[in-house]
Amino acid sequence: MSQDSEKQGLRIGICGHGTVGGGTFNLLRSKASEIKRRVGMDLEVVHVATRRPSAELKASGVHYSTDVFEVARNPEVDLVVELIGGFEPALELVLYAIENGKHVVTANKALIAVHGNTIFEAARKKGVVVAYESAVAGGIPIIKALREGLAANSIQWLAGIINGTSNFILTEMGERKRDFPEVLKEAQELGYAEADPTFDVEGIDAAHKLTILAANAFGIALEFDRVYTEGISHITTADISYAEELGYRIKHLGITRVTDAGVELRVHPTLISENTLIANVHGVMNAVVVKGDSAGSTLYYGAGAGAEATASSVVADIIDIARTWRESRTQATIPPLAFNKLRNDLRILDISEIESEYYLRIPARDKVGVMAKISQVLTNYGINIEAVIQKEPHGDDAERGIVPVVILTSRTSENTMDVAIGVIEGLDEVGGSIMRIRVEQFDGEDN
Amino acid sequence: MSQDSEKQGLRIGICGHGTVGGGTFNLLRSKASEIKRRVGMDLEVVHVATRRPSAELKASGVHYSTDVFEVARNPEVDLVVELIGGFEPALELVLYAIENGKHVVTANKALIAVHGNTIFEAARKKGVVVAYESAVAGGIPIIKALREGLAANSIQWLAGIINGTSNFILTEMGERKRDFPEVLKEAQELGYAEADPTFDVEGIDAAHKLTILAANAFGIALEFDRVYTEGISHITTADISYAEELGYRIKHLGITRVTDAGVELRVHPTLISENTLIANVHGVMNAVVVKGDSAGSTLYYGAGAGAEATASSVVADIIDIARTWRESRTQATIPPLAFNKLRNDLRILDISEIESEYYLRIPARDKVGVMAKISQVLTNYGINIEAVIQKEPHGDDAERGIVPVVILTSRTSENTMDVAIGVIEGLDEVGGSIMRIRVEQFDGEDN
Repeated sequence: MSQDSEKQGLRIGICGHGTVGGGTFNLLRSKASEIKRRVGMDLEVVHVATRRPSAELKASGVHYSTDVFEVARNPEVDLVVELIGGFEPALELVLYAIENGKHVVTANKALIAVHGNTIFEAARKKGVVVAYESAVAGGIPIIKALREGLAANSIQWLAGIINGTSNFILTEMGERKRDFPEVLKEAQELGYAEADPTFDVEGIDAAHKLTILAANAFGIALEFDRVYTEGISHITTADISYAEELGYRIKHLGITRVTDAGVELRVHPTLISENTLIANVHGVMNAVVVKGDSAGSTLYYGAGAGAEATASSVVADIIDIARTWRESRTQATIPPLAFNKLRNDLRILDISEIESEYYLRIPARDKVGVMAKISQVLTNYGINIEAVIQKEPHGDDAERGIVPVVILTSRTSENTMDVAIGVIEGLDEVGGSIMRIRVEQFDGEDN
Repeated sequence: MSQDSEKQGLRIGICGHGTVGGGTFNLLRSKASEIKRRVGMDLEVVHVATRRPSAELKASGVHYSTDVFEVARNPEVDLVVELIGGFEPALELVLYAIENGKHVVTANKALIAVHGNTIFEAARKKGVVVAYESAVAGGIPIIKALREGLAANSIQWLAGIINGTSNFILTEMGERKRDFPEVLKEAQELGYAEADPTFDVEGIDAAHKLTILAANAFGIALEFDRVYTEGISHITTADISYAEELGYRIKHLGITRVTDAGVELRVHPTLISENTLIANVHGVMNAVVVKGDSAGSTLYYGAGAGAEATASSVVADIIDIARTWRESRTQATIPPLAFNKLRNDLRILDISEIESEYYLRIPARDKVGVMAKISQVLTNYGINIEAVIQKEPHGDDAERGIVPVVILTSRTSENTMDVAIGVIEGLDEVGGSIMRIRVEQFDGEDN
């Protein structure tokens, strides 16, 4: 298409002018000429909805109002950027924008994970694009890699550090040997964790992102309700030290894998070998490893949050849409969840149905024969012991006569492990509940 | 676009049936139904050109011939895949296919790096797409990340391990403390290095890939002739050990960076901190770090070669083209080098114009005052010493009375360092030529 026949430019309305909204506004304006050099047209912000207009916005001459729905029905707007977050009124806003024939770009992971199926169906009927690269892993173009770059692959599994707050806390706990509550407080002071940290440290945010990744990896519907979610607040510095001694790091991972039985969909702390690249992703950074049958393992690393990194992906989505919009096409070139037809033959597995190796920290009473008893129970359930650490007790444990026995087990089903743990906890030789952390061997993640 | 109005399917001709050609052929056929589920149409191989048809090809019922040009003029073919490699007849073939209105997918890094400007201009005039994701870093979708995922960024620099053979050799030298010739021989036996290893170990292959990455990063023309290229054959296990002692690894990197003066474009062994992710990329694996002004540092890791990984990217390109081809569009949605208009205001810098920190290994005579003399010269040129290793001589060095003095310097210009090295080599206290390796601090590559 020659430049003569180009449309004037894509007109953008931005709903929300907070951290990411303001960042997107600034990026679109500061990069206007470079973006035009890429796309061959102007991307112009024509309307912003916010209750707190910044000085920059006021000075910009761009029209602004308080009502987000005004943006979604503005006939001068071709594309609506939803950056208000949460479910209400974000869902209503996005559906209203679609109904009015607007393309939509959103960074709202919760919205897509929970209501994406509804949103994409509405978009399909109306012939508009809903893009959400920024909803997962901030500035890392992981949705594009999954949907397009790896399109020739059957994805076998993926695993990701997809919540920077949790990774920051685990990194600090490991490096400074400081406990969870103390590090959480520091993360809150640094602005890495919210006043209510539940979403991050209990894995809900990661579960939203994993839901979206799994749908794109396997071409299945979004099934947020089926994600097994376990946080990091119960991890101790002792666990991190024992893991290190065994050659592992503890990372809070989102893992999804397709097996003959169905799809695993789980977020939990995980021991991974210190020799893998993903074990060496520190602080607030994110990374996702994807195992495809042709490409093998590929890894994508970068900033998972922050105004600029998120705005980078929001604007990349806008540019993608602008490129197809120019051609006056009425439908997305690339289906929203990677496949034109989603599979409905894959069942999401319950956590009890998965298989894993396990790290167990058992509070054993300091008695003769305790190790023999524990070994016997594991053997009875067909579980092998791959490694053991047993040390002199100290501190509180010593006073209570408790020796922590740390065991790495062979692969077994979660169900079997649940039963075995119950039996071991019932032994006279065991003085409390057992800490269990899953262990993953990402074959081929690094060579 | 509804399914009713879909074209029948994209008809593909493959030129070359070697490792990658055969892999592409097999992938397109074995994944036919899954690809159709993604794209909503058939991608059908209708013609293969090869002088050595495999048993699979013969049994497939797919038409084959010996003449690659027959594929490029076959009216039944919509897209030509060039996998014959080299310049001739690959260039003629690609231009002939374009002339006949075929879209082209190629994995030929040398062809794109050296003749890409000509090829893309021909494609633009004819309104066809030339795609080459597989030409750089095999199965890693790095071109897509640069061109699309990071489209909102001004790229500041990128650095990559983009030749698996060199990385394998350096990894083995480091882990086993075995010298270059021995490891090269092993790499040749394992099939990781060619009988003539020049292309890989002297950095020419990496320079091809860096040329392509730089053009996409900055929106400049392909300038292969301007790449400074230095191989790894002069690196010793002693250098690797000294680097380790200083907290660094030696990696063979392609580095490109835009500065006020112009564009750095260079391939050479480089010391990088062992704490960075890219320093932990081992064996034949590839990785590229990209520093964008919005997204920050992102890293892309995976297999850089091999039939399957390369075919993964070839087929991803075919799928991309199929998606736009369906819409009957006459021009590429995404410009071949990321920008609609390339910049011509950026000069490629000569290696003498760059600035770097340096590792120097100086063969000093075992005399009093040698360190003082060397320090004085460096000071005269405004170069600070950041770290020193000086040990007892042993082996050949001891017999010759030589003490290796290893120095990490502060940042200075290559030009100044050339002069300083010349002066130091002229000292009576120095008994041979100095080993110089550049040191890069990738701020923000890891936190």
